[in-house]
Amino acid sequence: MTCAATPWWNIADGRASVTAPLVVSMGDPAGIGPEIIAKAWQARADGELQPFVAVGDARAVERVWKGPVRRVADLSAVAATFAEALPVLQLDSAGEITPGTPDPDGARCAFDALELAAGLARSGAARALVTGPVSKAQLYAAGFIHPGQTEFIAERCGIARENAVMMLAGPGLRVVPMTVHVPLADVSGLLSVDLILAKARVTARGLQRNFGIAAPRLAFAGFNPHAGEGGAIGREEIDIIQPAIAQLRAEGIDAAGPYAADTMFNERARVGYDAALCCYHDQALVPLKTLFFDDGVNITLGLPIVRTSPDHGTAFGIAGQGRAEPGAMIAAIRMAAHAADRRAEGAACQ
Amino acid sequence: MTCAATPWWNIADGRASVTAPLVVSMGDPAGIGPEIIAKAWQARADGELQPFVAVGDARAVERVWKGPVRRVADLSAVAATFAEALPVLQLDSAGEITPGTPDPDGARCAFDALELAAGLARSGAARALVTGPVSKAQLYAAGFIHPGQTEFIAERCGIARENAVMMLAGPGLRVVPMTVHVPLADVSGLLSVDLILAKARVTARGLQRNFGIAAPRLAFAGFNPHAGEGGAIGREEIDIIQPAIAQLRAEGIDAAGPYAADTMFNERARVGYDAALCCYHDQALVPLKTLFFDDGVNITLGLPIVRTSPDHGTAFGIAGQGRAEPGAMIAAIRMAAHAADRRAEGAACQ
Repeated sequence: MTCAATPWWNIADGRASVTAPLVVSMGDPAGIGPEIIAKAWQARADGELQPFVAVGDARAVERVWKGPVRRVADLSAVAATFAEALPVLQLDSAGEITPGTPDPDGARCAFDALELAAGLARSGAARALVTGPVSKAQLYAAGFIHPGQTEFIAERCGIARENAVMMLAGPGLRVVPMTVHVPLADVSGLLSVDLILAKARVTARGLQRNFGIAAPRLAFAGFNPHAGEGGAIGREEIDIIQPAIAQLRAEGIDAAGPYAADTMFNERARVGYDAALCCYHDQALVPLKTLFFDDGVNITLGLPIVRTSPDHGTAFGIAGQGRAEPGAMIAAIRMAAHAADRRAEGAACQ
Repeated sequence: MTCAATPWWNIADGRASVTAPLVVSMGDPAGIGPEIIAKAWQARADGELQPFVAVGDARAVERVWKGPVRRVADLSAVAATFAEALPVLQLDSAGEITPGTPDPDGARCAFDALELAAGLARSGAARALVTGPVSKAQLYAAGFIHPGQTEFIAERCGIARENAVMMLAGPGLRVVPMTVHVPLADVSGLLSVDLILAKARVTARGLQRNFGIAAPRLAFAGFNPHAGEGGAIGREEIDIIQPAIAQLRAEGIDAAGPYAADTMFNERARVGYDAALCCYHDQALVPLKTLFFDDGVNITLGLPIVRTSPDHGTAFGIAGQGRAEPGAMIAAIRMAAHAADRRAEGAACQ
């Protein structure tokens, strides 16, 4: 295949140069974010991690980790620093840090780190964005008005929040919850053909752009037990999910189902699709976290930039004790780099 | 501990002599039941299976399996036969059998086999009952009026169907769906403190009787994402599940939760409880079948007899091809024998 050179507008569109570093926002400095980022740097060789820079307060790392930390003034210093020390783009807002005890200064620092890191990725100065875990309650107290980091990033990227789709990915499973943090009793009323079409189109395109899957295979979970048994145990499959699947197939998207949820996540079934689209939070998250509790990655599809995060929270209860597992952060950094590579290939060949 | 001799009433209560065989109803003769029962017999040494007798039409086995089959007139012949051939208590109603093509004669045979096998277990002539897979649609056509085999067995045992509790068990997880084959949108309205108390009490007692767990630990799944986050994402936890747990604890039952469903089925979390009580079908069945697709066992708690079954259907699509996996049937037979042993110990020591 003959590929044109990467056009200049890829930068402005968030498709950064392949020599740019990844950027990792530190999350709440009193949580496990600083520790797992430091441990990820420590495992950079084993994890085959591309150079990254942490954004936040370097003291939060030094408080919980004895390895080398180096403050950098801008991203041009990251490549040279990365081999010897964890590069940190220093912010000054964290105040005194007590691991396990979040406070408003720390939340402000987490907010600033997210803002700066998202901006660096959006401008193309960073290849991709990885976000550390934040406490929403703390962020709200610091003036944060978005439901979560994903919605904030979508807005900064000029994307309507409903077009930013959360995908959770483990080594052998990708899931998209089509509804997320809503009461389960409300889900039946929220499911619609339009919702499913929107989520599925973004998912299919996201699998192409971020994972290099030319013809993504989407498998839909039914809403009811046994996918409704032909209407005997509920009609959401017949009235909503089946028509949406038919429409997607008419558009050329490889959509299949709805399948009984309890039979679609075992090892043999999982090889049959690239992503499972699920009706509600736990239908997606239960199989993902049951199988891949320590290395689940949250990747946001539909953005002009690559954004991933480890699929866990701040874990204040174990912060500062050296016990935090960096597996999910390492997986998030690796997935962000791979996705940026796929996008660069795609851009070069368009 | 000094144990009294097994009292005579154990027999009448379905607690059979330890020398009685297990009884396995063949299920639909056109499904995979005959094949997996024969394969289980073949694996009797590896599986350390106690003697069992199949109930149904021996021709259905001979049609799909080349091993030795021997018709027995009553259960007294099973022990001597079992080492050399699969013993079958012969019924005459199956007619011509075409694997993969169910018909009314076969459904009638499955019905008769279930009736006879349940009666043998209820009388104490058999130690425990294992049921092969049936087709509900076929059974209904043959005059069966119960929702499923479990309700039929409960009725034959003189138990109200709501007191017969379905537990699904794999090698590392036991789950109880507190609602089963109902539309998911109806579950919120069906959950009640009384329902949870009833299911939990039967489950706790069932874990004692059938699994020999003196102080069973019950973990409850929340209904909403993140178990409702303190009411922010739904109130079923606060209004229904928490009061039920408090009541159970007041009764001395080790009940905990409600937990976010997505974090309670990973390997580390599973060691913390003996059974997970789930609000709806897929919340229980998704983790169980994701982890243990080939060896899940359905055990009915709350009955005077031991009853298990493999957690899969008739699989008409692969019947007669020699490809059916007997793992779940072997696990069901083994679990039935273990449960009967535990009951005998409990009866002897009461």
